[in-house]
Amino acid sequence: MTTVSDAITVPAGLKGVVVAETSLGDVRGREGFYHYRQYSAVELAQERGLEDVWHLMFEGTLPDADGRAVLAREVAAARHLPGAVRDALPAIAAAGGGPLDGLRTALSLLGSARGLAPVYDVTPAQRRQDALGLAAAVPTILAALYRLGRGEQPLEPRDDLGHAAAYLAMLTGQEPSTQQARAVEQYLMLTVDHGFNASTFTARVIASTGADLAACLVGALGALSGPLHGGAPSRALDTLDAIGTPDRIDPWIRHRVLAGDRIMGFGHAVYRTEDPRSRMLRGVAESLATADPGAERLVTLAEQVERRVVEILAELKPGRELHTNVEFYAGVVMALCGLPREMFTPTFAVARVVGWSANVLEQARDSKIIRPSARYVGPPPPQPVPPL
Amino acid sequence: MTTVSDAITVPAGLKGVVVAETSLGDVRGREGFYHYRQYSAVELAQERGLEDVWHLMFEGTLPDADGRAVLAREVAAARHLPGAVRDALPAIAAAGGGPLDGLRTALSLLGSARGLAPVYDVTPAQRRQDALGLAAAVPTILAALYRLGRGEQPLEPRDDLGHAAAYLAMLTGQEPSTQQARAVEQYLMLTVDHGFNASTFTARVIASTGADLAACLVGALGALSGPLHGGAPSRALDTLDAIGTPDRIDPWIRHRVLAGDRIMGFGHAVYRTEDPRSRMLRGVAESLATADPGAERLVTLAEQVERRVVEILAELKPGRELHTNVEFYAGVVMALCGLPREMFTPTFAVARVVGWSANVLEQARDSKIIRPSARYVGPPPPQPVPPL
Repeated sequence: MTTVSDAITVPAGLKGVVVAETSLGDVRGREGFYHYRQYSAVELAQERGLEDVWHLMFEGTLPDADGRAVLAREVAAARHLPGAVRDALPAIAAAGGGPLDGLRTALSLLGSARGLAPVYDVTPAQRRQDALGLAAAVPTILAALYRLGRGEQPLEPRDDLGHAAAYLAMLTGQEPSTQQARAVEQYLMLTVDHGFNASTFTARVIASTGADLAACLVGALGALSGPLHGGAPSRALDTLDAIGTPDRIDPWIRHRVLAGDRIMGFGHAVYRTEDPRSRMLRGVAESLATADPGAERLVTLAEQVERRVVEILAELKPGRELHTNVEFYAGVVMALCGLPREMFTPTFAVARVVGWSANVLEQARDSKIIRPSARYVGPPPPQPVPPL
Repeated sequence: MTTVSDAITVPAGLKGVVVAETSLGDVRGREGFYHYRQYSAVELAQERGLEDVWHLMFEGTLPDADGRAVLAREVAAARHLPGAVRDALPAIAAAGGGPLDGLRTALSLLGSARGLAPVYDVTPAQRRQDALGLAAAVPTILAALYRLGRGEQPLEPRDDLGHAAAYLAMLTGQEPSTQQARAVEQYLMLTVDHGFNASTFTARVIASTGADLAACLVGALGALSGPLHGGAPSRALDTLDAIGTPDRIDPWIRHRVLAGDRIMGFGHAVYRTEDPRSRMLRGVAESLATADPGAERLVTLAEQVERRVVEILAELKPGRELHTNVEFYAGVVMALCGLPREMFTPTFAVARVVGWSANVLEQARDSKIIRPSARYVGPPPPQPVPPL
């Protein structure tokens, strides 16, 4: 056996292992609290707009009205794609794989088209510019790929709308209502950043090699595409569909719990109490439902399912407390705002790419490569190589 | 301040931190030894071919002659690109960024075109198929992007050649000599895998989310594109050019060492003794030089530079022992085999993608997400959110 002297053994999956210092924010799993810099993320989502949070994550401070307007103009300008990327989108959509895979390809191409240099070789101002240019383009790329996938023409981004409203307008071809735009904006604000999840960590590992912004964001996007990370919001809604009506809630849940199946939209790696994003999105869903009987039926069903899952688990599996996670009500909110299910996880990327970018900008100040070790557990070397 | 209870603090950059168990291989930095499974990697490169190492990494065993032939046919077939990718290559080359960036885009597109499913959702056999299909396509994509960048038509892969020779033939348009093909093959065999470097770790973090093979490999490629990871083989050769003639070696090195500059091609994160890849590639370079006076001059200069860097460092910075790393003689070998400098790091990817794939296949058996923590060091939250 290999002797791994000096080797430091840590829990599987690096759970609880502090891999970096950050001033971007934190998640306090036991308290059910998370924050962006020194502000509660939930309070930011209630009181401010997405561009304000973007400013906070990139510059370190909340903007005043002028500062917000300046950033909003920069973001609006960067929503327009260079011709090399716009022209490639039909071929990317036609190759298959859906909008999230297509975004991976298009964002990589955008990095090439922008001629990005390694993060350690450029000034902080240029790095910020690179990050903003890529992150702002995500809604345009996603909306275009979605429309192309349905045989429709992509739409140009509107400069007079905020980022969330502009995304919805490009996707649906209609200007969203104020309420819908605000609901999606609040969802996006709530999901900009959330500790050192797998995609954020991926972005930072890649950044630590000095790779350019596109390499970092494309890698993060890959991690987000994994079902264990970003893949569940539409499945939570599928669960509500499968249940259908309130009278079917109990048998459906009991059957699943007794079979040991996972119930989509419940449980989180860090939170041991209610997910604060879920709590706020429940309120957003309720407010969206007030004027619309169909919406009200969905929201009521969701709330009943939430209550009964918790109660039935307490009865059948005492001690295994589970709460709804961000995905449960996120799916409901997105559905009520007219977002198609296949765009739920991609829409998550619209927000999270801002957080990834901020993490890359922070990581790039460190310039130390992240290179862990492994323990070799195979047959002992060297064995002689047998001739062919 | 946030209290990070249960937090485990580890060295910066996860140095020495064991993040997984592996039976793929290991690097013993102090001994100057590394191995693929139970075999010395250097001995494999001396005794076997690239397809044998590929078989070893994917299947766990060295093949017999039949097994090698079967794998070689599979690899040769997968070198042919689907139309959706082949047709997109001119636009990808035209977007700019060079072959390594373009490979990131094209490999992402190939994943979509192949309709890959998340790694946890497919059988091990399908996963292996996906991995082989992507990894085998890398030389074809790179050679095509290189030729398109020079206004030349891409060439179809030849099925009658081994992987290394087929790559050289697609790149240069000429069938390489046996000696050149073998030299490049040996370089590729030596660089298939090397512990938990940043790109391999990236591939495994992404795989741990259940993302598909393309997401994993594209992320790894991003990490490889970072100058601190894969970016130096051509710069080591640039150093030899800058020195030019033997009489200029000493003043050039002294000047650099006294200025505290890094000398490209020297030093490694793990090896504390001679890099075994460097030692073998020096021998390969020597054998390539025997018939060619120009080649002999380059190899002799490289050997003199190597010797004098070590001696001058011992004199000026005692205790700071540095040895050539894989990049130093890799650059020399690739140059002598007709590879253009801009293709040095991309050629590294031809080999390493096999190692990344094997790591993803191994990681996918685990199905536990890699999600570390960070320590928040910013101002304490929650501060009230100021109104706009």
